[in-house]
Amino acid sequence: MSKFNYKNFFVFLSLGFLTVFLTGSASASSSPDETAFIFNTLLFLICGFLVMWMAAGFAMLESGMVRSKNVSTICLKNVGLYAISGIMFYLVGYNLAYGIAEGGYMGSFSMFAPGEDIATGYASHSDWFFQMVFCATTVSIVSGTIAERIKVWSFFIFAAILAGVIYPIEMGWQWGGGWLSSMGFSDFAGSTLVHAAGGAAGLAGAIIIGPRIGRFVDGKAIPIPASSIPLATLGTFILWLGWFGFNGGSQLAIGSLDDAAAVSDIFVNTNLAACAGLLVAIIVAQTMFGKCDVTFALNGALAGLVSITAEPLAPSATMSMMIGGIGGVIAVFGTKFFESIQVDDVVGALPVHLLAGIWGTVAVAISTDVSAITQLIGTVSVIVFVFVLSAIVFLALKATVGLRPSAEEEELGSDASEVGVESYPYFK
Amino acid sequence: MSKFNYKNFFVFLSLGFLTVFLTGSASASSSPDETAFIFNTLLFLICGFLVMWMAAGFAMLESGMVRSKNVSTICLKNVGLYAISGIMFYLVGYNLAYGIAEGGYMGSFSMFAPGEDIATGYASHSDWFFQMVFCATTVSIVSGTIAERIKVWSFFIFAAILAGVIYPIEMGWQWGGGWLSSMGFSDFAGSTLVHAAGGAAGLAGAIIIGPRIGRFVDGKAIPIPASSIPLATLGTFILWLGWFGFNGGSQLAIGSLDDAAAVSDIFVNTNLAACAGLLVAIIVAQTMFGKCDVTFALNGALAGLVSITAEPLAPSATMSMMIGGIGGVIAVFGTKFFESIQVDDVVGALPVHLLAGIWGTVAVAISTDVSAITQLIGTVSVIVFVFVLSAIVFLALKATVGLRPSAEEEELGSDASEVGVESYPYFK
Amino acid sequence: MSKFNYKNFFVFLSLGFLTVFLTGSASASSSPDETAFIFNTLLFLICGFLVMWMAAGFAMLESGMVRSKNVSTICLKNVGLYAISGIMFYLVGYNLAYGIAEGGYMGSFSMFAPGEDIATGYASHSDWFFQMVFCATTVSIVSGTIAERIKVWSFFIFAAILAGVIYPIEMGWQWGGGWLSSMGFSDFAGSTLVHAAGGAAGLAGAIIIGPRIGRFVDGKAIPIPASSIPLATLGTFILWLGWFGFNGGSQLAIGSLDDAAAVSDIFVNTNLAACAGLLVAIIVAQTMFGKCDVTFALNGALAGLVSITAEPLAPSATMSMMIGGIGGVIAVFGTKFFESIQVDDVVGALPVHLLAGIWGTVAVAISTDVSAITQLIGTVSVIVFVFVLSAIVFLALKATVGLRPSAEEEELGSDASEVGVESYPYFK
Repeated sequence: MSKFNYKNFFVFLSLGFLTVFLTGSASASSSPDETAFIFNTLLFLICGFLVMWMAAGFAMLESGMVRSKNVSTICLKNVGLYAISGIMFYLVGYNLAYGIAEGGYMGSFSMFAPGEDIATGYASHSDWFFQMVFCATTVSIVSGTIAERIKVWSFFIFAAILAGVIYPIEMGWQWGGGWLSSMGFSDFAGSTLVHAAGGAAGLAGAIIIGPRIGRFVDGKAIPIPASSIPLATLGTFILWLGWFGFNGGSQLAIGSLDDAAAVSDIFVNTNLAACAGLLVAIIVAQTMFGKCDVTFALNGALAGLVSITAEPLAPSATMSMMIGGIGGVIAVFGTKFFESIQVDDVVGALPVHLLAGIWGTVAVAISTDVSAITQLIGTVSVIVFVFVLSAIVFLALKATVGLRPSAEEEELGSDASEVGVESYPYFK
Repeated sequence: MSKFNYKNFFVFLSLGFLTVFLTGSASASSSPDETAFIFNTLLFLICGFLVMWMAAGFAMLESGMVRSKNVSTICLKNVGLYAISGIMFYLVGYNLAYGIAEGGYMGSFSMFAPGEDIATGYASHSDWFFQMVFCATTVSIVSGTIAERIKVWSFFIFAAILAGVIYPIEMGWQWGGGWLSSMGFSDFAGSTLVHAAGGAAGLAGAIIIGPRIGRFVDGKAIPIPASSIPLATLGTFILWLGWFGFNGGSQLAIGSLDDAAAVSDIFVNTNLAACAGLLVAIIVAQTMFGKCDVTFALNGALAGLVSITAEPLAPSATMSMMIGGIGGVIAVFGTKFFESIQVDDVVGALPVHLLAGIWGTVAVAISTDVSAITQLIGTVSVIVFVFVLSAIVFLALKATVGLRPSAEEEELGSDASEVGVESYPYFK
Repeated sequence: MSKFNYKNFFVFLSLGFLTVFLTGSASASSSPDETAFIFNTLLFLICGFLVMWMAAGFAMLESGMVRSKNVSTICLKNVGLYAISGIMFYLVGYNLAYGIAEGGYMGSFSMFAPGEDIATGYASHSDWFFQMVFCATTVSIVSGTIAERIKVWSFFIFAAILAGVIYPIEMGWQWGGGWLSSMGFSDFAGSTLVHAAGGAAGLAGAIIIGPRIGRFVDGKAIPIPASSIPLATLGTFILWLGWFGFNGGSQLAIGSLDDAAAVSDIFVNTNLAACAGLLVAIIVAQTMFGKCDVTFALNGALAGLVSITAEPLAPSATMSMMIGGIGGVIAVFGTKFFESIQVDDVVGALPVHLLAGIWGTVAVAISTDVSAITQLIGTVSVIVFVFVLSAIVFLALKATVGLRPSAEEEELGSDASEVGVESYPYFK
């Protein structure tokens, strides 16, 4: 140490710094911020395509649950609503949600204009993509409830308004930083913002349009069989798969150890809630009705998923199973409840998305500090807002272009009357 | 500052450097090049499995569009062509495409022999996998056009030659760095190299094999209904999902901020082009035919996807919608065009892949500097090359093992005559 | 150099270090260990959701292969077993497998209790998720073999025991570091631990429950047609896709260049083995039976996948094709073998998972140093263990709640008798 060669040391130092600076700034992927940026972007893209895939899940679930004379129509509605949602969320929705002032009620009517900023931690378009598929999911929920009795183009107009205006406004209240968020409301991935909202829109439609002909006779519910159980099962599996993206991606980041662990916890809790929802639903169904009804298994799993969506991170795995399991109970009893009040819900979306959505939102109070009252206020506000605006739109459509096909067309099936393509021409 | 302790400072400095060097080189994943290498490999693997999944999409789309007496056969052809493509692209195709000299016409006939080199920026096998699924996609396009009237093994022989020889040669012209690339041709993800090429091969087959019995009677087109619209819809959703991998992965890298942002832009543009294609197609169909035909919705979305594939990065989102929307127009009018010239295209692959592929390739000139003339020369060159070689192979098969089942076998359906397995034995 | 300004230099140095320290420690994703941790976690999550998706693949494959009167039931069994497996693996299975002593025989009966440790290199829940879907896969294999003749709840009880106890114990022997692992046994992704084990459980069930009524008459096998070939094809494509996660994720890491290259190699070998299995199976079927049977194509691909699963990394691509190709031969002859001994295997899971699983396990000796004898001892041990325990459980169920519906119920179909939901009410 005594005969220290300062000159060499400085050369050494300089080379060292050069190396650090070169690897630290010249190379494209070297900075830790950039690495996190890529991870986060990748999370949005992967989870985004999983949620996009849920559109196919709804299409298959609904194709399986309607009668074969309306299968082509429900297929068309599902691909169509996905297309319309994508365009409307670009033209209007995104800025209506995220252009909101802190604590405010609504953003601006303007097109999404992306601009990259490394400080956001992700590519702006990856975020848009992820948010867009949530918008489409909300609309998908509606198509199932009011299937088999709404005209194609009337449904598409409603879909455009829900995707472009109604959903973005209420979603911005929370995820855009609006008044719900300021109030302390908590909804991690959208039990209320997506699922209860979609359910509320569907309920408005179901009431205004009325039940399918023959669904309720002399005050009694007449079961109308589903056309294809394997398609409904496939749809449920697709939704279950997509839900890993739905909840996992809502962590919004995977660029740190903590985020990676959080996304993993979310996967496990999400899955266990669905497992418990399914199991509880079939146990209840077997006990009450003496049959192990597969449609309750499917809706039980989905209700478990909706229930855990408001808070898939904080609860323990055991708690997640309990939250999901109660969702399974809701799936069965909720179905009977809506039947009892003569609301015709073709796929059971109201118990699954609306009721389990409310339950999941309130259940956040169990595993976190948020108040159950705040949660209740939030979910009721969203539901009332969406219900009222949807009702206005449905009533306006009824008064103008019309909502419902004629009774003859309904009996014939809209595959023949509106779409002109039979779903299964060789099987009858 | 005056009583600066040099000795402590140097110790501190040394420790600091030690830390930097240890974290910077000792750990396996520390180097920025290595991190980018992993990201890029991950992109190829994820996008590769999404494109692999498109093989299932074609299988479902085609299963839904053929008559029920040929469904088992089309399922067999689709899994079979994927298997054959994988093997042929390994044995011959990859090096035929990428072993090409700069500006050249064709690589070498030799097996793919991987070797890792960190300088390439990705694992060699991840790249092979990604390229292989593109090869399989090209072949998938053909099976739909010439469905219901070509013998299974004749189709498989054609598939082997298309996957192993024809596709790799023309693809190498551009992506291998051959003459098209030297000429300044631009085709980001394959509107021409994959889609128009697959369409050209299908067109050669459709002309040489001729239409299905009963498809054209006295010069008039007789519609032959599809057997399952939900399967066709599922297939379209699968293709749409897979297309995020198809176009997104064609960025070939996600190891930097710019690449991550580019892949995100591609996701958004790809999606919006499909949305617009669908919406425009059903508006045109509703206006022209008075029905909101679901098959035009499906093919409109696919045509939008094909249209944006040649350049999914450069255009703005709005421009992407316009490019995709014109694809939707092409899907409808193209279908009528091929009907009018009595070319029997079972699934509508010719308007969707061939015509929209040409359109997408030429449209690159709108959003970039490349010349529309160069684009036209490129796409016509590929189409003529593939058409001529495919025609030669089909004619050779016709002259030897035969292309077409007997009229009796065709009436009976090839599920019974060739495959020995009925697709839906309980529904008739 | 002579007029070196020490003061400025030190300020520069300090700023430099500040930069390095800030980016190197303050930012969340900066440490190389953390980057690798995130990559590895991402691998588990992505591959985990791909394997989860295999549950849908089994559901579709089996829905397609059973008669239409039992389709709702098999759908229910498949979603149900996935739910039950998830819960049981949490409550019991994971620690029974991984809480094992080195060289031991069994872990502890306790719930999985996660705790993060960066030194493991991945998030603990991501690993649990990945292992859980393997557990569910094992159970899925059983449902296909014994379909159409076991009561729903009896099957669910068996599923719970297989998922919670039998599978975790034998899996822990190897992947938990138990006696098989100490012995030098090698099974990369589970040709034996998952596939042969699932097959052994199915064989026990098939023998104890007996064949379906009418399957064997006067010692002759009577073919019972599948209800939907496109669903079976879809199921196979899903399984094929999921297998990239199954084998690729079993590398357990992608945080280094070597791991990224390894996962890529695994993708390619896995795919080529499936391709070869399919191609060989249809060539054998065409030669032997004169028809190009699509079900052999599907099972040939799956047998190729099972065969390569024990060692998808070490063999060359060509060797992988040979290993998979022999799997294809096994798929055809194995089907005939089980028919000849009057074991009724509805979907052909015994040749595909049990026989090709044994073959794949022994074939590890070809491409690595492990001894074929050790491999044989390992696979036979697992098969005998699973077979005997499964047989005990099935016999206990038979003696208590009963295994088989009455002959009348079996003729009617369990969709009507147990599930109360027809699968396709409009097609008959």
